Order: sequence, then structure tokens, then C-alpha cells
Amino acid sequence: MAQRTRLSPDLRRAQLLKLGVELLSTRTLDELSIDDLAAEAGISTGLLFHYFGSKREFHLAVARAAATQLLDFLAPDPALPPVPRMRQSLIGFVDYVTQNRDAYTSLVRGAATGDEAMRALFEQTRTAIAEIVLHNVDDLGIEPTPKLAMTVRGWVAFAEEVTITWLRQEEVDRDGLLELLERGFFQLAMVAVGVDAVAPYLPDLS
Amino acid sequence: MAQRTRLSPDLRRAQLLKLGVELLSTRTLDELSIDDLAAEAGISTGLLFHYFGSKREFHLAVARAAATQLLDFLAPDPALPPVPRMRQSLIGFVDYVTQNRDAYTSLVRGAATGDEAMRALFEQTRTAIAEIVLHNVDDLGIEPTPKLAMTVRGWVAFAEEVTITWLRQEEVDRDGLLELLERGFFQLAMVAVGVDAVAPYLPDLS
Repeated sequence: MAQRTRLSPDLRRAQLLKLGVELLSTRTLDELSIDDLAAEAGISTGLLFHYFGSKREFHLAVARAAATQLLDFLAPDPALPPVPRMRQSLIGFVDYVTQNRDAYTSLVRGAATGDEAMRALFEQTRTAIAEIVLHNVDDLGIEPTPKLAMTVRGWVAFAEEVTITWLRQEEVDRDGLLELLERGFFQLAMVAVGVDAVAPYLPDLS
Repeated sequence: MAQRTRLSPDLRRAQLLKLGVELLSTRTLDELSIDDLAAEAGISTGLLFHYFGSKREFHLAVARAAATQLLDFLAPDPALPPVPRMRQSLIGFVDYVTQNRDAYTSLVRGAATGDEAMRALFEQTRTAIAEIVLHNVDDLGIEPTPKLAMTVRGWVAFAEEVTITWLRQEEVDRDGLLELLERGFFQLAMVAVGVDAVAPYLPDLS
């Protein structure tokens, strides 16, 4: 249990959000109660409501913090060339989902609530991930056509679903998952923009 | 507006569900009120509650009816060989999503409510679609390995996201969408099970 220490309201709020996101590693957002968090933080539920206003605001703030953390995990390293940079982001993505399974499932599917703000957060997060990928693709010299942009968004959904499914099974290892996501991306990009634009990046599949 | 006619309770309930699903073509499930449906059906809200018990039960019943309708649209024709059969299912899918845009977005994303039953419905629907695809793949003589099963689920998510994105733009036409979904499938399957197993079905992309 955390010690009671005197912190500024902003720091205390940030600390509570961090704890909220940590608790999501073992429960969905729906299951995350104000009582649980208050007990873990060693404060009263009244004080928690003081920081977050309502259960809805608290859930939304935790979801935002989790989305920010996800984007941190897959933030591209500008020092790397595009292909290794993308691989590094993919590893970050898989690691995040592995470590925050329930949080990820409930957050990124946007299924935790019917709340408009939660759905907007889901859309923003998916759009931010798609933009990271499109930026990489642009650095590879592949023209980001409308069809490619659609494909990239679709591939993000593919990567999410494959990774969630992967967590529930034991036959495919982590390297197999990463290979499927990375190679899958270039194969789909090839369908969208033609083989010539993507050929230099296509791994040998035979 | 529908006429008041005497129907058996089962028929009346089915008729109300049909109307509910129709109304989803122009509004999300969240926006579908008991009042709207009662007004459209020409009955009292009290009678509607008599049939469905609660707003939650009504929404769940409409969602189930919409999911059933979606699966009807993409039911495979057993008389066709696997590749045209899959193309026909894809056309059914795209047509359904085009005609039921809001319903599809709110239902299949499972984002309409945080309700456990709604999420289970979403999972069942996605699993049913994946099973249709896996059955086709099996008929092509491609072995359904665990990696391919993961890939198929991922491709269903890809197809959903690409189609929803496609509805919001005007640069890519329907044929371009269908080609992206169909070719994308075989390219992803190739990553999962190797080029030899899928090669006979790979379209020429050069």
C-alpha cells in the first residue's frame, strides 16, 4: 500500500492515475472501482472524488493516461532508419499489450463504456498510431495514397486483434507474432500501392 | 408509419425488431430510443416495454437482430467454389456495412455500451465471421494452423476498419475496396502459412 505523503494536488492526481493504470493490468476499466483505488492509495474515496469529480471522470482520466502510456511505448526512435524504427514500435506495442492485457482490451476496443468521450479517445488513439505508421511509410519513400491510408488504419486494427488473440493462445511465440505483424504490414501495403513501391522492403517468404 | 394490426406476440416482437434494425441505418444504437421506435410502430411505449422489458433488453435484442442480419448478408453460397464464394461473402459484407453504416459502427465495434452481453455478442459475431473464412480456407486445402486462425481474426478486424474508413472518403471506389480486402486476405494468409500453400490463389499484383 502507498504511504500517505504530502504532495501537491497535481502530483497527487498524477500518482493516482499512475496507480489506476497499474491496476488495469489485472482488471478492466469497468471493474476498476473508486473504492479499490482509494484503498490501494491509502486515501478516502471522498478525497478521490475531490480529485476526479465522478466515477466517469475518473475512468476517462485513467483511460487517457493508459492511451498516453501506450503511445509512449510505441513512440518511434528518430535515430533509427524506417524499417528498424517500425520494428521497434511494434515491439513496444506487443510489450505494452502483454503487460496491460485487460487495460488494452477494454480501452483500445473502446468497449468499456458507451461514453462519447471514451469513443473519441479510442478514435484519437487509433489515429495517432496510424499517423506514426504513415510517417514511417513516407520516410520509406512510399507515397501515402488514400488507399494506403485506409490500409494503414486497417492494419492497426489487424495488429490489435491479432495481438489480443495471441495473448489467449500458446502455439505461436512472440517472434512469430512480430513477424506476422511486420510482414503482414508490407504485404498489405503492396496491395494498396503496388509491388514496385514496396518490393525493396518485402521479406523473402519462400 | 406501420398500421396497427393484430399479430401474435412473437410476430409483433419480430416486426418491432425489424423496425429497430431499420432505424439503425440512420442512427446508432445509443441514439435509438424506445419513444422513437414506439412512434414509428404506432404503439405505446408501455406496449414496447411489455415486449422487451427494459431499454437495455430492447437494445440487446436489436443488436442481436442486426448481427443476425449481417451474418445473413455474408452467408456463403455452398454451390460456389471457395474463391468466388469468399468474394460473394465480401460483397455481402460491404453491402451490409454500406446500407447500415451507423448500426454497423455501433454494433460491431461493441462500443455502444459497456454491457457484458453486448461485448459477448460482438465477440460471437466476429468469431462467426472468422469461422466462415476459416471454412473457406479449409476448402482451398490450406491447413488452418493456429497462426492462420489468428491471422483470419485479424483480417476480419482489418476488413471492418478499412470498410468503416472507406465509408468516410470518396477517393477509393467499391471495386478498389473489394480488391484490397480480397487480395489483402491472401497476402496475409501467405505470411501465416507460407507462399507455397497460398500461391495458387495469389492474384498478380505487378
